[in-house]
Amino acid sequence: MRVLNVGVIGAGRIGRVHAENLAYRVRQAKVVAIADVFPEAAQKLATDLQVAAVYSDPQKLLADRQIDAVAICSSTDTHARLMEDAARAGKHIFCEKPIALDLVKIDEALAAVARAGVKLQIGFNRRFDPSFKRVREIVAAGGVGVPHILRITSRDPAPPPIAYVKVSGGIFVDMTIHDFDMARYLMGCEVEEVYAAGNVLVDPEIGDAGDIDTAVITLRFANGALGVIDNSRKAVYGYDQRVEVFGSAGMALVTNKTPDSVVQSDDVAVHSTKPLHFFVERYAEAYVAEMQEFVQAVLEDKAPPVTGMDGRIPVVMGYAAWKSYREHRPVKLTEISA
Amino acid sequence: MRVLNVGVIGAGRIGRVHAENLAYRVRQAKVVAIADVFPEAAQKLATDLQVAAVYSDPQKLLADRQIDAVAICSSTDTHARLMEDAARAGKHIFCEKPIALDLVKIDEALAAVARAGVKLQIGFNRRFDPSFKRVREIVAAGGVGVPHILRITSRDPAPPPIAYVKVSGGIFVDMTIHDFDMARYLMGCEVEEVYAAGNVLVDPEIGDAGDIDTAVITLRFANGALGVIDNSRKAVYGYDQRVEVFGSAGMALVTNKTPDSVVQSDDVAVHSTKPLHFFVERYAEAYVAEMQEFVQAVLEDKAPPVTGMDGRIPVVMGYAAWKSYREHRPVKLTEISA
Amino acid sequence: MRVLNVGVIGAGRIGRVHAENLAYRVRQAKVVAIADVFPEAAQKLATDLQVAAVYSDPQKLLADRQIDAVAICSSTDTHARLMEDAARAGKHIFCEKPIALDLVKIDEALAAVARAGVKLQIGFNRRFDPSFKRVREIVAAGGVGVPHILRITSRDPAPPPIAYVKVSGGIFVDMTIHDFDMARYLMGCEVEEVYAAGNVLVDPEIGDAGDIDTAVITLRFANGALGVIDNSRKAVYGYDQRVEVFGSAGMALVTNKTPDSVVQSDDVAVHSTKPLHFFVERYAEAYVAEMQEFVQAVLEDKAPPVTGMDGRIPVVMGYAAWKSYREHRPVKLTEISA
Amino acid sequence: MRVLNVGVIGAGRIGRVHAENLAYRVRQAKVVAIADVFPEAAQKLATDLQVAAVYSDPQKLLADRQIDAVAICSSTDTHARLMEDAARAGKHIFCEKPIALDLVKIDEALAAVARAGVKLQIGFNRRFDPSFKRVREIVAAGGVGVPHILRITSRDPAPPPIAYVKVSGGIFVDMTIHDFDMARYLMGCEVEEVYAAGNVLVDPEIGDAGDIDTAVITLRFANGALGVIDNSRKAVYGYDQRVEVFGSAGMALVTNKTPDSVVQSDDVAVHSTKPLHFFVERYAEAYVAEMQEFVQAVLEDKAPPVTGMDGRIPVVMGYAAWKSYREHRPVKLTEISA
Repeated sequence: MRVLNVGVIGAGRIGRVHAENLAYRVRQAKVVAIADVFPEAAQKLATDLQVAAVYSDPQKLLADRQIDAVAICSSTDTHARLMEDAARAGKHIFCEKPIALDLVKIDEALAAVARAGVKLQIGFNRRFDPSFKRVREIVAAGGVGVPHILRITSRDPAPPPIAYVKVSGGIFVDMTIHDFDMARYLMGCEVEEVYAAGNVLVDPEIGDAGDIDTAVITLRFANGALGVIDNSRKAVYGYDQRVEVFGSAGMALVTNKTPDSVVQSDDVAVHSTKPLHFFVERYAEAYVAEMQEFVQAVLEDKAPPVTGMDGRIPVVMGYAAWKSYREHRPVKLTEISA
Repeated sequence: MRVLNVGVIGAGRIGRVHAENLAYRVRQAKVVAIADVFPEAAQKLATDLQVAAVYSDPQKLLADRQIDAVAICSSTDTHARLMEDAARAGKHIFCEKPIALDLVKIDEALAAVARAGVKLQIGFNRRFDPSFKRVREIVAAGGVGVPHILRITSRDPAPPPIAYVKVSGGIFVDMTIHDFDMARYLMGCEVEEVYAAGNVLVDPEIGDAGDIDTAVITLRFANGALGVIDNSRKAVYGYDQRVEVFGSAGMALVTNKTPDSVVQSDDVAVHSTKPLHFFVERYAEAYVAEMQEFVQAVLEDKAPPVTGMDGRIPVVMGYAAWKSYREHRPVKLTEISA
Repeated sequence: MRVLNVGVIGAGRIGRVHAENLAYRVRQAKVVAIADVFPEAAQKLATDLQVAAVYSDPQKLLADRQIDAVAICSSTDTHARLMEDAARAGKHIFCEKPIALDLVKIDEALAAVARAGVKLQIGFNRRFDPSFKRVREIVAAGGVGVPHILRITSRDPAPPPIAYVKVSGGIFVDMTIHDFDMARYLMGCEVEEVYAAGNVLVDPEIGDAGDIDTAVITLRFANGALGVIDNSRKAVYGYDQRVEVFGSAGMALVTNKTPDSVVQSDDVAVHSTKPLHFFVERYAEAYVAEMQEFVQAVLEDKAPPVTGMDGRIPVVMGYAAWKSYREHRPVKLTEISA
Repeated sequence: MRVLNVGVIGAGRIGRVHAENLAYRVRQAKVVAIADVFPEAAQKLATDLQVAAVYSDPQKLLADRQIDAVAICSSTDTHARLMEDAARAGKHIFCEKPIALDLVKIDEALAAVARAGVKLQIGFNRRFDPSFKRVREIVAAGGVGVPHILRITSRDPAPPPIAYVKVSGGIFVDMTIHDFDMARYLMGCEVEEVYAAGNVLVDPEIGDAGDIDTAVITLRFANGALGVIDNSRKAVYGYDQRVEVFGSAGMALVTNKTPDSVVQSDDVAVHSTKPLHFFVERYAEAYVAEMQEFVQAVLEDKAPPVTGMDGRIPVVMGYAAWKSYREHRPVKLTEISA
């Protein structure tokens, strides 16, 4: 059995998730190096996982000859550049979403990957959740007939820090991007037009930062189906992640996932447990599965399951949603260009 | 105990529902007359319920002096005129929705009711469903905090006959009208703007008749909250009637109602029962409750729970939705005038 | 359409349930007389239902020539005698459970019914609940394969008054009797042996009255299947009525029934509604259905669905359970004789 | 951070589960040696986990001075002897259930552990399942009031091989033992008496081997509460693992765990996913958690959460159940002696 030597760039929360999964739960992978511009963070993660090579400069990691592939988990503004550099260094690439907030930069990065001929997988982890994956399989197998309506509810337990909100690209590019990807994935069809309504209902500071925190987005698919996504930055009961595909022969939906299956009855009501708190808990299995598929794709020279174009299109959808929100009208994706 | 003598106009499906409820399940009411332009229908219902007075001309029923109140259950195009006539005859009025497809007619009918000083209740039966009513109570009591997002899924098991589609006013006025009412009821707030996306996905004949069969409608409420309604004319698994109000302190939702609570497990899956087939089954309790409240309002001289204005506004919303669909843009309710 | 004229004997809680159903919900029945040893109770019910004939002596009701059938809803100690008298009077009989607490009296009553050739149906209402009925149909159709294990949970919301406990025959004859019937009904097979464990955990006064309030009863069926019933006189969350049949090909179970289908989520948990409070609410549909079947059986000269023997056997099971509890050993039903 | 060096004895299915968890999911543990009387099995597991020391003789593993603790995962008949040897070698011990089928051997092994002063934890993994653990916490905190009734349903997806059945000690010692432990754990109280009914309904070969495959066991607790366990060796819909504690203030129950939360509706029914197949999947989290607690108990010199006596008592209960089944009467645990 060959083993893939992976270098992890970015030792923050999501970097740690991927590094631990690669170290403990992906049999054919080995974490051989960790880089972070904060050397203490890199060192801490490396110590925990017994990884020898530690870099504060990601470029040095890219120059490390033992490394076959990199997982880019640094801040969004560094993704595109690191992707280009990694491609030039001949490393296969797993990159967190979004590739960039700028379509020109995305296209340059994807071009560099294409030139280098390395594998690229974008971190749309939700596709690897067992429930969502099964809905996709049901839809693809005709289990709901011809899809007519897609519904996605996606609500975070709490908003990110305002400092992050300011540089995130806003809700549609930072948060809804996952739902845009899920919409394309579940329906197996492109979105042609979006209409986005939104408001600041959770926290006025989010409004002051130029963002919104509550949104309802209507989607029109190329095949004529309709979709709707509703988002909130704050669901007090935890991470609310539900999808539903309705079609001519039935419906498939996913309910929330809970930490236990206890049901308690008393003289007031019947009580069950809140959904898992946030993405690290909710998508624990999905984070493992996406990495397993990435490692397998590289080792077996197969196409990764989430392509560069899968990384680009949801950013376009995010911009179309912002344009729709600002111009108060439905916007076609063709109106958005690099 | 005083008893309210009610005359039922229209002996079709919904007329029979109301007549049976008045006869058997509303203690303080008595059905004393039935009218239908098809005399056989009127006679059949009268025989079943042991009602003595049978008319083929509704005007004769209105002239019947023993009658205190009428339930108008005839075809939509006759509602407004009968309402005016009943008001002039001094009868209290329960009227099925919609009052009319024409706002001028609605306003004339409501004016006649006001002049006569009779009670009027519009048949938005879903408000009286125990589950929806409890969600309204939870929302009104602050149980979800400040409401941020409303979701309504409303799908029929099968489309109506094409002949009916042609005269119905179309999906937004015929079907979504119930959801528009539910939106106002649950949120306790008016809608200011709608954006309607729609398509013909169920049956091309519906498109040929100038209507659509699948829709996603975004609502913007006066208080800044957002809402979304999704409609389909055909859910093969039965009548799909779900609502959800999400707010700053939590969420309240209603799941579908089933004829039994059997769960069957075999080597393939875990199976439970489909939702109740259609409105007569799903809203059986609600039809009784709305009539009980109407009868009580008349006998105790109280304001009925669903007013004439509650009957008018959803029609305005239906027209706004059609305008939005046709002009492919969000439309304010203030753009619609009589 | 012929109509069955029914006289109701006993105007207490269950008498009112049956009388209202016969009056309003069973199309082919008419309540023509009401009798109760408390004349005010009989008169009140008769007034509410607009019934002309009112008797304080049930014998006078039995002598009323217009009456085709009687519903015996008086206190348990009068059932057997009234059944004999009604049979002699040529009236068809619907009789509440239990027929009697004494097997000799039961046998005499059943013999009288047989001699008279009248129809007899015992009031095991739960068989007519849509959920339990569907489980029976699934089991009968082989939907769970060969049945191996039966589970019944049956818990009341609150104990009856101590005065009633003292004359009720005790938990196994008064309360578990319904579960014994359900066991035979669902499995389509007789019970050969019972082992009853019990205790006084809810209220020591119940123990002082010679009864127990908590029980676990093991059943051994003639076909080798096993069953277990658990009972409590007090479930603070409401009437807990669940059954489950497990077999070689799967399982069918029934969950509790609730007044609404609201689900509320907050920062603490997900809350849904408690089960319906007690039998009048829980089995509302079943009470109507059993009466419809009784009336139909008489009018169409068919065998009623719950026979006299169906009324006798659960009493035998109750005595076997008491014997088992007292002698602390499994007891065969053949050990119990009249 | 100190790390616990663990040697795993037994490289079969459960040995692999524990070894992988110790290697990948228990931060403070390291698997340093593996022993199995089948050298290939030991070698394969050692290679997969990159463990250097491999033994075919467990005694050699016990003599390995780098080892702090052992996980005894070999066949049941070797547990007690290995426990004694490990204790004498000064190794802390995690031992799979049952300790032995012979109470004398159990007592000798426990005495050896006590003399050596090493830590011992028995592998009752289900206690560490998040749902069962939470029910225990709810019960301990008074969340159901005073417990009155315990219900456990425990059904395997398929019987073990007949060869295993013959040496397993039979259903009560091999399978129900987990439920006996769960009963004591959830109720926080000892069982005084059992009554076991059973039959051969799944496979006559199991009967030929002197065992049964279907059972209903009544428990009487020291505090007067009652309990019931139902077991089957074959549930075609998967591993059925439900518990329920009912008490004076309410009820807490655990429903089955499924691989996904997809709900599919079509024109026939509403379908959801079967329970996880068997213990490796169902208790994946619990196997990790029990090992984490064992490692922590050793490193922090605390009492392990499942003691030697917790390992002994369920074996006594198993023998009492067999005695009850064979003698067809309730049996007190005090009737069983070493």
